[in-house]
Amino acid sequence: ADVKKIAVIAGDGIGPEVVAEAEKVLKRTEEVFGYRFETEHALFGGIAIDEKGTPLPEETLTVCKNADAVLLGAVGGPKWDNNSKELRPETGLLGIRKALGLFSNLRPAVVFDCLKDASTLKPEVLEGTDLMVVRELTGGIYFGEKFRRESAQGEEAVDTCAYNVAEVERIVRQAFEIAQGRRKKLASVDKANVLETSRLWREVVNRVAPDYPDVELEHVLVDNCAMQLLRRPASFDVIVTENMFGDILSDEAAMLTGSIGMLASASLGEGSFGLYEPVHGSAPDIAGQGLANPIATILSLALMFRTTFGYAEGADAIEEAVANVLNAGHRTSDIAVDKSKAISTTEMGDLIVAAI
Amino acid sequence: ADVKKIAVIAGDGIGPEVVAEAEKVLKRTEEVFGYRFETEHALFGGIAIDEKGTPLPEETLTVCKNADAVLLGAVGGPKWDNNSKELRPETGLLGIRKALGLFSNLRPAVVFDCLKDASTLKPEVLEGTDLMVVRELTGGIYFGEKFRRESAQGEEAVDTCAYNVAEVERIVRQAFEIAQGRRKKLASVDKANVLETSRLWREVVNRVAPDYPDVELEHVLVDNCAMQLLRRPASFDVIVTENMFGDILSDEAAMLTGSIGMLASASLGEGSFGLYEPVHGSAPDIAGQGLANPIATILSLALMFRTTFGYAEGADAIEEAVANVLNAGHRTSDIAVDKSKAISTTEMGDLIVAAI
Ligand SMILES: CC(C)[C@H](C(=O)O)[C@@H](O)C(=O)O
Ligand SMILES: CC(C)[C@H](C(=O)O)[C@@H](O)C(=O)O
Repeated sequence: ADVKKIAVIAGDGIGPEVVAEAEKVLKRTEEVFGYRFETEHALFGGIAIDEKGTPLPEETLTVCKNADAVLLGAVGGPKWDNNSKELRPETGLLGIRKALGLFSNLRPAVVFDCLKDASTLKPEVLEGTDLMVVRELTGGIYFGEKFRRESAQGEEAVDTCAYNVAEVERIVRQAFEIAQGRRKKLASVDKANVLETSRLWREVVNRVAPDYPDVELEHVLVDNCAMQLLRRPASFDVIVTENMFGDILSDEAAMLTGSIGMLASASLGEGSFGLYEPVHGSAPDIAGQGLANPIATILSLALMFRTTFGYAEGADAIEEAVANVLNAGHRTSDIAVDKSKAISTTEMGDLIVAAI
Repeated sequence: ADVKKIAVIAGDGIGPEVVAEAEKVLKRTEEVFGYRFETEHALFGGIAIDEKGTPLPEETLTVCKNADAVLLGAVGGPKWDNNSKELRPETGLLGIRKALGLFSNLRPAVVFDCLKDASTLKPEVLEGTDLMVVRELTGGIYFGEKFRRESAQGEEAVDTCAYNVAEVERIVRQAFEIAQGRRKKLASVDKANVLETSRLWREVVNRVAPDYPDVELEHVLVDNCAMQLLRRPASFDVIVTENMFGDILSDEAAMLTGSIGMLASASLGEGSFGLYEPVHGSAPDIAGQGLANPIATILSLALMFRTTFGYAEGADAIEEAVANVLNAGHRTSDIAVDKSKAISTTEMGDLIVAAI
């Protein structure tokens, strides 16, 4: 097989621990399936601020750009929370998305059978929930002009939210295509009764919709969507929305599955390149203690296999191994009912490796 | 007693039905407590578009400005959804908020005992949930400059989100004061890791916080708040946030109580003037059939009594009457377990009137 290059960014908090387990899984798939990977580690986030004076060093970007895909652990932590904007991990995150052209963030929210009791929702409401939030990732109010100015009523802060037709169209078409490969339902979320960007968004959605006649489309206002996710989560298939709304709704959707420690995500651009990371954060409170659950990161690797490399066999094998280990009753402490029986981060990784 | 003037805006859909019941309750409190009210009806929303060619006629504003408080049913419906912006009910809603200076929207989310099974959340998670979202209502991206322009990538839409210190300070101080009258906990929600307006917001919160040393303050990022509301709703007391975030989070909070048909809201400005309305919408699908639940509107009246008029006795009496009627097992169809035993809008209103 040809060599696939993976940039590995461990990051902060539990990032290094969970990424280490995913790397073991990576090795195992080389043995079993004959894949060949070349990994290159790079500094990013808080650790890059500490060691290089910037959350996103130029060499990290180069490593990513030379790779076929990026595996990211997690970034951030209280240590850097009060830094000035340029010296914050989040700024690196926004920077890497923009620099790599990752305009699309796929956030699947599924319920793991063994975790359905972990949700705060009633099991009968959750039953069958399997949705995907497609979040626009390089536009909107995140990247618009921001400034302060003097006003008659004291200092004033301004953020600008802008979207052009091309930006909306590429993410919306991608969402329609993803829906075609799933249950063929797309909910486009906006606030078209108030925002001009939402009105443009809706116009574009309606214009391209006829190209996907097999997909059932609904427009949902963002406030209503926040409610409907709670009321009828299983009725959603694909949800497409702009950056800020996607940030909020994808976290709500992830939390309602009760499986947030297990969810993978992909950030994609044009072509097959992608950045893959667990949905959970850097959890500084449990870092370095072997308590972290590596499953979301391992499943992010499976998502990379399937989406960037087209390695369906390897992806299936990883996902099945995870399912088998869970079905055998093994749990890290975050998902263990009986915490005294919880296994460590490395034990979980080893079991999954052995199951492949 | 001196005469209190109430502008009554029935609006669209089920608005007229639920408002009619609240007016019966109003009359009843005149008899029982000797209050004196003068009501004046005014057109607003879809019906105003149909009859006057604008969602917010000048005379409606005049009626509101001459009143001590406004009681609003609900506005909007599919009939007007495809109208141009100036001819949409929502535009009237934004207009009336701005014209009356209603910068603060109070959205209490409480769980009614008899409705706790109606929530999709597990009862043990919901237990004790009693929170208040304080939403800034006349600033931010709702009211910022909006326009279209040509860009190299096709037409572009722009929304502007602006907040000045004075705007943030008045709502934040109000939220601190409300928290002082409750469980003394305030969660300020922003996206300070990305938005300049949020950074200003957080600066103002931190600057005024020392004036309320008895209130425990936490800063919560909006995406995290969307999750925490699901995970630990009972841990929140008062949540204060900007307009757009408040729109989303207050609806999420309302839905998770399972009691959305029962929730009241107040929109306040400087002084005691306020606009009171149920949280639910105009529900055009059930309009005119006597199916609507008038309780949220009747409780909005109680909120008006307490907040604008200082009529605590009357407010208590209304709230107790509602509780008694519910405890006696009476239900409109939206909250009835056995729909065949459901009572009508007017029956519910009559029972509450009789219980005062
Ligand atoms: C850390 C923050 C900038 C980021 C975002 O809001 O995009 C995070 O919440 C996410 O969803 O990846
Ligand atoms: C109808 C709409 C403009 C309005 C808003 O977003 O403010 C509504 O959702 C609300 O919350 O009162």
